Amino acid sequence: MNPVDIITKKRDGGELTRAELDYFVRGVVEGAIPDYQIAAWLMAVYFRGMTDQETTDLTLAMAASGEQLDLHDVLPGAVIVDKHSSGGVGDKTTLAVGPIAAACGLPVGKMSGRGLSFSGGTIDKLESIHGWRGELSEAHFRRQLQEIGLVIAAQTANLAPADKILYALRDVTGTVPSLPLIAASIMSKKLAAGADAIVLDVKCGRGAFMETLDDARALARQMVAIGRLAGRKVTALITQMEQPLGLAVGNALEVQEAIATLHGRGPADFQELVETVAGEMLLIAGGADDLAAARTQVSEVIADGRAFAKFRDFVAAQGGDPTLVEHPERLPTAPIQRPVPAPRDGYIHAIDAREVGLTVVDLGGGRLKKSDVIDPAVGVMLARKVGAAAKVGDALCTVHAASEAAATQAVARLQAAYTIDPAPAHPLPILLDRIVEAA
Amino acid sequence: MNPVDIITKKRDGGELTRAELDYFVRGVVEGAIPDYQIAAWLMAVYFRGMTDQETTDLTLAMAASGEQLDLHDVLPGAVIVDKHSSGGVGDKTTLAVGPIAAACGLPVGKMSGRGLSFSGGTIDKLESIHGWRGELSEAHFRRQLQEIGLVIAAQTANLAPADKILYALRDVTGTVPSLPLIAASIMSKKLAAGADAIVLDVKCGRGAFMETLDDARALARQMVAIGRLAGRKVTALITQMEQPLGLAVGNALEVQEAIATLHGRGPADFQELVETVAGEMLLIAGGADDLAAARTQVSEVIADGRAFAKFRDFVAAQGGDPTLVEHPERLPTAPIQRPVPAPRDGYIHAIDAREVGLTVVDLGGGRLKKSDVIDPAVGVMLARKVGAAAKVGDALCTVHAASEAAATQAVARLQAAYTIDPAPAHPLPILLDRIVEAA
Repeated sequence: MNPVDIITKKRDGGELTRAELDYFVRGVVEGAIPDYQIAAWLMAVYFRGMTDQETTDLTLAMAASGEQLDLHDVLPGAVIVDKHSSGGVGDKTTLAVGPIAAACGLPVGKMSGRGLSFSGGTIDKLESIHGWRGELSEAHFRRQLQEIGLVIAAQTANLAPADKILYALRDVTGTVPSLPLIAASIMSKKLAAGADAIVLDVKCGRGAFMETLDDARALARQMVAIGRLAGRKVTALITQMEQPLGLAVGNALEVQEAIATLHGRGPADFQELVETVAGEMLLIAGGADDLAAARTQVSEVIADGRAFAKFRDFVAAQGGDPTLVEHPERLPTAPIQRPVPAPRDGYIHAIDAREVGLTVVDLGGGRLKKSDVIDPAVGVMLARKVGAAAKVGDALCTVHAASEAAATQAVARLQAAYTIDPAPAHPLPILLDRIVEAA
Repeated sequence: MNPVDIITKKRDGGELTRAELDYFVRGVVEGAIPDYQIAAWLMAVYFRGMTDQETTDLTLAMAASGEQLDLHDVLPGAVIVDKHSSGGVGDKTTLAVGPIAAACGLPVGKMSGRGLSFSGGTIDKLESIHGWRGELSEAHFRRQLQEIGLVIAAQTANLAPADKILYALRDVTGTVPSLPLIAASIMSKKLAAGADAIVLDVKCGRGAFMETLDDARALARQMVAIGRLAGRKVTALITQMEQPLGLAVGNALEVQEAIATLHGRGPADFQELVETVAGEMLLIAGGADDLAAARTQVSEVIADGRAFAKFRDFVAAQGGDPTLVEHPERLPTAPIQRPVPAPRDGYIHAIDAREVGLTVVDLGGGRLKKSDVIDPAVGVMLARKVGAAAKVGDALCTVHAASEAAATQAVARLQAAYTIDPAPAHPLPILLDRIVEAA
């Protein structure tokens, strides 16, 4: 077996075997296969694609390339459920879904990432709570999972290291948009983190990596197929990301919105998404007979305060100040808060989610490169979403900025991100499709 | 302009501009573009191909990546003609064509390569003449071209350095068999060497890199198109390489056969090929009105000894012993000469040229890696070619070996390389097609 034969086989449309993919991924991680051969192989995969079996074998090889968590000794008999979002603007879903699922008795032990480009990251958001930290020892992770039932840790360096190498190369070789490579990247980390069942939230639209419904469906189907062949339960939801999710974009603002949602007072689209994802997690873990029963459980833990209490205990267990959860108005606040006025009368037809995300990055709330430091206080609070009417001067949203200059720039950019037209517009549905495990 | 954009444009089927290809090739040579990006680009080119204009622009950028010879100051008003063979087994064409063309008054200043794998190299063959050397200073090259009208030099390190880098990467990334890349590789070196007109001998069959007539025609058309767009005259011949060319395979043996051919006594297929190529060179350089007139001139310089005398003077000018040209029987001779008997009665239907070439490499007459040292004396002399009849025990060919053990191995391998069948077989034509410059 040698790298050129594997490249050539894929180039000519052949199906790589498990042994070949194991050999290749091992060579990638050990440095035995040089970058230029990996790059040629990635481009061949881009053009030829992969069968479901190949994609699954690649995923398993990548998952096995580093540390693999097994949480069954901590939670004997439990179904380990994970959720994953493909990333978007204003996506604070994990912050609300995790406590709700845990409050329903479903243990949630999750690895999350940091934000990059227009898309934020769960760890960054939680760090706006003073004292909270995501870097946990494995012993802490296991103990907290057992005691609280909810733990969210920053991804450790050694989870699926093959993915880190392949992802970095894809980024600089024009091979990012390959469905099997995207699916294997996401799923390898979920499998390495020890999930038995996974609810995937595949974002679709201008503020997501998959811009069309067809692309999002294809990625969802690919990941569901990997789950089936790898013996995991997978449900994929395809959800709206044409406009930002909820109203808050920015780290502390999003924590506040997540807390409101745990009280049942979130913005309509975000509240619905959170309760749906939590319900799917309960269903897939066998904690409910059907989706209706699952949704009832979810409503209960929100109504009686158990979901909120779980979030507070989780924050405290990871070093965060629980009084900030009780009083979210004490979270970091930006000195400048400036409304963005509608430039004309009409209905809102579109809010360019990517532009909103990039505006928040420019305000200091996100990263363009990994070393950028985040200001937790800045961001944008939407006042009106797609479908709403506005008159000249009405606030479309409010900029939370660190300086007047930054606010001025952001106002102009956000005004341009809104498409306002005299014709009436409809609100966008949040759930676009649901793809469940095939038989 | 950045490498990822260029990779992505090609990946998506776009046509790269001259400026983009110049930028990319400059980045390749200067090391500004890393190997993994070049590799991804090569694979994208493999899948998407290139238009004739793109291939020409790539060729020109590669030709301009290092030193570029201009021989017009040495030969004012002359049309600089070059020939190129795509490589094969027993291909000593340059050794005979060069002196013939020069004897007809056509200056031939040529860069040639060394052999690798089953295919031999002109420089290796000439080095079997004691004292002859291909490493010449530029001053020597120009002086000899002016005085003798024929010079053959080993390719200098700085001729089309982009090609060396791209070729080495193609070899290890599964991107060798891409028509535009093959054509650009060949043509960039010819253009950098200063040719105004080029006769291409595209070999076709088991002993060549292009195994089918369709592939050979496609490569020939591609190179003729580059010539047209780059303002050079190009004629491409497609010639037989199912079986070895002529009768001799091995360095000194091939020099002897080339000398016989300069006397008009070469094997029929090789004599015809040599006179055809030389005639095409005369025609393309404007040294004859039509092919018939060109062929008459060629016959004359062979018949009156001028072609042979030109070869002797050329050898002497590059340090070789001219008495070895007068007495080729004094060239290095192998200690063991063993006939290979026909294992059965019948007609010869095929001689696997690649196997014959690899057998000569194993005998010590070629290279598997660049550092291998060549034994000039060893090789194979064919006694019967495709179409001939043989009875059990008749010699199919003779092995020239350095040891009994090597001879024994070679005999078995050569017997297997011959396909003998009771049904009559036809000799193979040497010329398969001729593709001339389009308008």
